[in-house]
Amino acid sequence: MATVPLLSDAEAEAIPEVKAVFDDIRATRKSDFVNNIWRGLANDPALLKRTWEQVKGIMATEGALDPLTRELIYIAVSATNGCSYCVHSHTAAARAKGMTPAQHAELMAIVGLASQTNSLVTQMQIPVDPQFEV
Amino acid sequence: MATVPLLSDAEAEAIPEVKAVFDDIRATRKSDFVNNIWRGLANDPALLKRTWEQVKGIMATEGALDPLTRELIYIAVSATNGCSYCVHSHTAAARAKGMTPAQHAELMAIVGLASQTNSLVTQMQIPVDPQFEV
Amino acid sequence: MATVPLLSDAEAEAIPEVKAVFDDIRATRKSDFVNNIWRGLANDPALLKRTWEQVKGIMATEGALDPLTRELIYIAVSATNGCSYCVHSHTAAARAKGMTPAQHAELMAIVGLASQTNSLVTQMQIPVDPQFEV
Amino acid sequence: MATVPLLSDAEAEAIPEVKAVFDDIRATRKSDFVNNIWRGLANDPALLKRTWEQVKGIMATEGALDPLTRELIYIAVSATNGCSYCVHSHTAAARAKGMTPAQHAELMAIVGLASQTNSLVTQMQIPVDPQFEV
Amino acid sequence: MATVPLLSDAEAEAIPEVKAVFDDIRATRKSDFVNNIWRGLANDPALLKRTWEQVKGIMATEGALDPLTRELIYIAVSATNGCSYCVHSHTAAARAKGMTPAQHAELMAIVGLASQTNSLVTQMQIPVDPQFEV
Amino acid sequence: MATVPLLSDAEAEAIPEVKAVFDDIRATRKSDFVNNIWRGLANDPALLKRTWEQVKGIMATEGALDPLTRELIYIAVSATNGCSYCVHSHTAAARAKGMTPAQHAELMAIVGLASQTNSLVTQMQIPVDPQFEV
Repeated sequence: MATVPLLSDAEAEAIPEVKAVFDDIRATRKSDFVNNIWRGLANDPALLKRTWEQVKGIMATEGALDPLTRELIYIAVSATNGCSYCVHSHTAAARAKGMTPAQHAELMAIVGLASQTNSLVTQMQIPVDPQFEV
Repeated sequence: MATVPLLSDAEAEAIPEVKAVFDDIRATRKSDFVNNIWRGLANDPALLKRTWEQVKGIMATEGALDPLTRELIYIAVSATNGCSYCVHSHTAAARAKGMTPAQHAELMAIVGLASQTNSLVTQMQIPVDPQFEV
Repeated sequence: MATVPLLSDAEAEAIPEVKAVFDDIRATRKSDFVNNIWRGLANDPALLKRTWEQVKGIMATEGALDPLTRELIYIAVSATNGCSYCVHSHTAAARAKGMTPAQHAELMAIVGLASQTNSLVTQMQIPVDPQFEV
Repeated sequence: MATVPLLSDAEAEAIPEVKAVFDDIRATRKSDFVNNIWRGLANDPALLKRTWEQVKGIMATEGALDPLTRELIYIAVSATNGCSYCVHSHTAAARAKGMTPAQHAELMAIVGLASQTNSLVTQMQIPVDPQFEV
Repeated sequence: MATVPLLSDAEAEAIPEVKAVFDDIRATRKSDFVNNIWRGLANDPALLKRTWEQVKGIMATEGALDPLTRELIYIAVSATNGCSYCVHSHTAAARAKGMTPAQHAELMAIVGLASQTNSLVTQMQIPVDPQFEV
Repeated sequence: MATVPLLSDAEAEAIPEVKAVFDDIRATRKSDFVNNIWRGLANDPALLKRTWEQVKGIMATEGALDPLTRELIYIAVSATNGCSYCVHSHTAAARAKGMTPAQHAELMAIVGLASQTNSLVTQMQIPVDPQFEV
């Protein structure tokens, strides 16, 4: 259960700013499916719009990294933050963008390894080598 | 300052298991530079060996993801865990593997955005959409 | 499911130190409802008493911050720690203390933004400006 | 040391999009001081602009919460994420907006208490009470 | 629901490398029960093998710390990382190794207290005393 | 640099409630050394007293776990939360209570391993086995 109501399509259509964002999500993704995060954010149309514009600008526009790499990074952050919904939604998105089981397994191994060496470094309080300075 | 001593080259050479790992780090990386995490782990040769073997097996072997993508994922996890040393060392490693300023900026934007939407989702306690199920 | 049993009212009444805390929770909150965290902590009467005394002392006593502000801070920490139960209980508490939907939306936006800039700062390893020193 | 160069005023003035943001920071804050986070973000003018617009829109505009409350929430998140720079900069900002030592001490107590009860709840895996449902 | 399929015994038996690990888990633990983490990792036999070898080498071999102490440390980390599954599985493991209710309550109190003082220290940005240097 | 002033002995002696806690710290620990966390907390005598009483009650009293085990748990939480000061102070405390280099290395290995399996479990979103239910 959520701490805010999740807006249905009927409720979303009744608020022009929400309808505009939902329409843009559907057009950008070429799919009728609007997932739950947007239905929760729709309680505050300004927050919905600002969040969607960032997601669209960063994740759905051509840039320096390819779309699948972006999703892998998103999964890595979401898992490290322990966000269950986010791990689910971005793993599904990565699959939709072509992530193979071998790539998924390698991602899991890297994120797990990084968590381990992060912990070892923090326990030892290793000082930064001067060679790493910009 | 570290919570364990960082072994010098002379100290490392005196312990055969440590010397073997340091030699392999230098051979694998084609560089004489052995950074501080290994000098800290060298206090426990078994932990040093097990950690290096994982790093070598996952990060320095051909696999399903290219070497730069792996480093970007490592930075994403390290930043999310707040490991300063790890952010420094893997940002340097990513640069050495060809990360451009544009790719670095895009990585930063994605990791920042994911942190924001992770937080929004957790605050709203959004339930997982059935469409995301395997 | 919990990793410890949750004490029913009958079980709580049978342990004098637990009964005393449950009675004080009900009297302080002017409500018969004792939520699950206290039923779990009741397995260790000393931990139950020490935790309740802190919560009462910090959250239910007049101080330098008003009661709603305290709950907003509590939600911010709970979301950042990813504690689902805590987000639920303190969001309900904030609503009971008058949090409006507009305040809730603004809280969500601030906590999300802070998570994003925290991440950007950590990725860049920004040094503290001397102007921020006490 | 940062993982990216921090732009000086001279370097910032040479890039029109960066100059525009720095000018707006100075005008909005009525101060000549531009702190280090903006000098790091200036390496990517688009990220700088998007981040500043969010900070300005959420933190420097009139809304449902007063400016000091917003800073307290920002400190709570930054401390929970372990972002040293962010704790420093927003504690300074809160002081500039009138935070008293008593309010600071109370904030510290609440954030510490929330961290403790978050941990207790997670260790016990307490299920959400049905009364907390929206 | 998981983001990867959980392999049944029949599916596991069909993959020789997976069967070998499952057999070793059963032999090492003297129990027929193979819990879900291994059924998820079995999607990548190499990751399954590497993870099990570490768990076996660190948790199921005689060393400098007794088996129960190791499980208490595992619970402490899992709770702090907010990993629900891990808290459940290692609390069950600690009970199987003799953890008493009094020890569990003391563990909970210490982990909660550490979370609180960690937060206070981070909010105050306390500098390390020179006396703590190695 | 801290975000609050650290009280000197002279400043602490001038405030009766602070002097009383500092005297008790010195008597309990049989040492004249009062480390920096207490000098920071001394800005708010009530928070100082409440925090010290918990630390004394949980860490310095005979209980179900031995003093060294308690310190190992404290280090595990502090490292996972990324609290540099806390890792330093509790590693020093564990050494003072007899932690051997072999025990320290084993602690590091367990905390690192737990961080890794926590991450793998979260990435796979493994459901809790019914066998782990209380």
